Amino acid sequence: MLEELLQKENIDSGKLTASRIEAIRAKLAEANPVDIANEISEMEPKPMLTAFRILSKEQAAEVFTYLSREAHQDIFKQIPLEETAALLNEMFVDDAVDVIQELPSNIVRKLIDKVQDPSQRKAINEFLQFPENSAGSIMTVEFICLFGTQTCAEALQFIRKNGVDKETINTCYVTDATRHLTGIISLRTILLSPEDARIEDVMERNYVCAHTHDDREEVAADFRKYDLTAMPVLDTEDRIVGIITSDDIMDVIDAEKNEDIEKMAALTPSEKPYLDTSVWELARNRVKWLLLLMIGATVTSFIINRYNELLSHMVMLAAFLPMLMDTGGNSGNQVSTLIVRDLGNGGIEPCDWPMVLWKELRVGLMCGIVLAAVSFLRIYFFQSGVAFDVNIVVSLTLLCAVVFAKLMGCTLPIVAQLCKVDPALMASPLITTIVDAFTLVIYFAIATHLLPNQV
Amino acid sequence: MLEELLQKENIDSGKLTASRIEAIRAKLAEANPVDIANEISEMEPKPMLTAFRILSKEQAAEVFTYLSREAHQDIFKQIPLEETAALLNEMFVDDAVDVIQELPSNIVRKLIDKVQDPSQRKAINEFLQFPENSAGSIMTVEFICLFGTQTCAEALQFIRKNGVDKETINTCYVTDATRHLTGIISLRTILLSPEDARIEDVMERNYVCAHTHDDREEVAADFRKYDLTAMPVLDTEDRIVGIITSDDIMDVIDAEKNEDIEKMAALTPSEKPYLDTSVWELARNRVKWLLLLMIGATVTSFIINRYNELLSHMVMLAAFLPMLMDTGGNSGNQVSTLIVRDLGNGGIEPCDWPMVLWKELRVGLMCGIVLAAVSFLRIYFFQSGVAFDVNIVVSLTLLCAVVFAKLMGCTLPIVAQLCKVDPALMASPLITTIVDAFTLVIYFAIATHLLPNQV
Repeated sequence: MLEELLQKENIDSGKLTASRIEAIRAKLAEANPVDIANEISEMEPKPMLTAFRILSKEQAAEVFTYLSREAHQDIFKQIPLEETAALLNEMFVDDAVDVIQELPSNIVRKLIDKVQDPSQRKAINEFLQFPENSAGSIMTVEFICLFGTQTCAEALQFIRKNGVDKETINTCYVTDATRHLTGIISLRTILLSPEDARIEDVMERNYVCAHTHDDREEVAADFRKYDLTAMPVLDTEDRIVGIITSDDIMDVIDAEKNEDIEKMAALTPSEKPYLDTSVWELARNRVKWLLLLMIGATVTSFIINRYNELLSHMVMLAAFLPMLMDTGGNSGNQVSTLIVRDLGNGGIEPCDWPMVLWKELRVGLMCGIVLAAVSFLRIYFFQSGVAFDVNIVVSLTLLCAVVFAKLMGCTLPIVAQLCKVDPALMASPLITTIVDAFTLVIYFAIATHLLPNQV
Repeated sequence: MLEELLQKENIDSGKLTASRIEAIRAKLAEANPVDIANEISEMEPKPMLTAFRILSKEQAAEVFTYLSREAHQDIFKQIPLEETAALLNEMFVDDAVDVIQELPSNIVRKLIDKVQDPSQRKAINEFLQFPENSAGSIMTVEFICLFGTQTCAEALQFIRKNGVDKETINTCYVTDATRHLTGIISLRTILLSPEDARIEDVMERNYVCAHTHDDREEVAADFRKYDLTAMPVLDTEDRIVGIITSDDIMDVIDAEKNEDIEKMAALTPSEKPYLDTSVWELARNRVKWLLLLMIGATVTSFIINRYNELLSHMVMLAAFLPMLMDTGGNSGNQVSTLIVRDLGNGGIEPCDWPMVLWKELRVGLMCGIVLAAVSFLRIYFFQSGVAFDVNIVVSLTLLCAVVFAKLMGCTLPIVAQLCKVDPALMASPLITTIVDAFTLVIYFAIATHLLPNQV
């Protein structure tokens, strides 16, 4: 839509008259800032700047927070530092901080010094101190503070006067004179209570809160547990310093899940979109894990080497190696995925381990027996070159491998949790390597035992 | 806390006097319903019912929605159908429907007929019609409807009178006489606008909405894209029938991510917590995928069989099979995980495939060269029994396997997306099987070529 509007004008920004800019601006005022941002993000740098500068000051600040990382860079390159600072001045603090964190650090200091509003500057500075992934780093400082001694009518009056700039006023926070949080109250309660009721008599004293240094993942868990839409954040002295809203938490839930998935796939987690990540960075994130796992897998080659003698007499045995190891690996991953999920959401505690182990023993036996039977029949009917006793060895190994994989798949993540290591790291590839080694040992042990005359 | 209170009383419910119940109820009124529910969920069936019946009617309905599935069953078994129906009468419709869906279907009909409030009964019935995972199935019907002709003062008055029962009043919906949505307005805007402003002059006409049959995953994506806290749901004739709130969306984001993870681990997705799932169900969810993949993996045994001759002369080659196949599989999974993630959030479109392929070719070469070099040096220095030319064969195969795995890992999920198959299904285990087969073919081809005198 924006592009159309600009093309209709068919001239670059220098020749746009003020009245025409006004006309376009009025049309854009109705549009959703996210959609405008998406359109601008896809433009070439020059028209992008033209389009961006047409927006009103307030709309520009909002649109800017939704632009892509590249668009941010493109715009920063073309506008003076003062204009950037003015933009930051207009933005919600947490959005401004997100933008700043993309910039090279030498620019950041100069830029912040140019932000005019001193309270905004101070807030941005404080935000930059919070550790990554902490509650402090995702909170917003725009919220409404009330006093317990106010009446509901006074509180409403106060909100009417002070609410314009606040990111959310649906929940208000009640503090004493020293900014200690004494309760929370929803706008709804204020509205639905008698006008002369005192805030402290109708507020909720039982609230869920976070501290600035809490891990954002724990905050997200509490959000979901208590079905919250906003949560107050307190500093080390229990004074309220910010709030976290549900839109930020949605991003956290998504990011934390992606982190788990990436760890399970032996990747160094990164929140950067794939297409924005350089080849070099992609290779670096991956090669160290591949190396580690490759070195780990060499143990399998030593095991096979030990049974060289057996293998050279029974080359047929080698044909089943990949199938046995893949099935074992898949069986292990199935469990570990479920266990990692439930360890993450509190559905499983480490003390449940014996119960889980007993469950997996039975699941493993059931799956193992079915797989072994199907494999036996398949080989018997469709691979006539395979001797009957070799078929028995393969089926037995399959059963053992599946059961062992199930037991390892539930044990490793729980052990990791006990050792304060992220269970997701223990999942998938590591389990595959361990199960592989075990499968080989069992395979050759059974073969040596059952096929003595061939050796 | 609850258990303590009950133990202090030290008598069962029959002997609790009304005044004592009142005293406990007053103490509990302050507590968070989620915490009460967690405590009750862990009790034995009999004290559970005692504790539950002590709660006030309104608190009981709220606590009930947070009880565990088992606790629901335990309570249902002990109370008459009428009491259950009364409970449903008090609950928000979407919560009531969640509870009903856990029940055996023969009870459901009888139960719903006993719900006294006819509008509640009708709403529950309508909800039960919506397909699973649709926007309709997660919406709530409690919301505030305003008319465009009202002034802000009138609207506030209306909200004050009608807002008690509504799940959220932070956003209000403006309709015409036929319930067609004309705009949305936040309570904040109503409060901050002049009292005599007409709603239709200050409301937002540009809103994001869903239809009852939309997939909940798409709704969640829009929530995140537009940073919403609530979204109106329209029926096929564009009349507003409900709203979706952010707490429900958080659960959707989490559930959809878990579904992806489970599909990638070759599991039939299930939202049931691990500990609540029976051994039989766990085994059934897993064994069909394991079977499918096991049958798929048999292609590897045919490939190895074809090279029996070569292997029997060079048993040493077998020793490197697991390492080569694991590294190939891991390399493929790393890419497919990222591609599935970004296909899901719109970061990658199928048309980006050539760009992705070119990127992965370079990443694959970089990773492959490093891995091949490290493997070569490791074998050269630490595995002196391995001939130099065998070492060369292994390193070359490693390089080819990694590059091929990277190319397959990005291609398969994109092809799946194009064929309208869930890309997550194509990830991990399927890629492993394909990469395994390719690795074997390449390995033996290179070996036949480079080691001719041994064969």
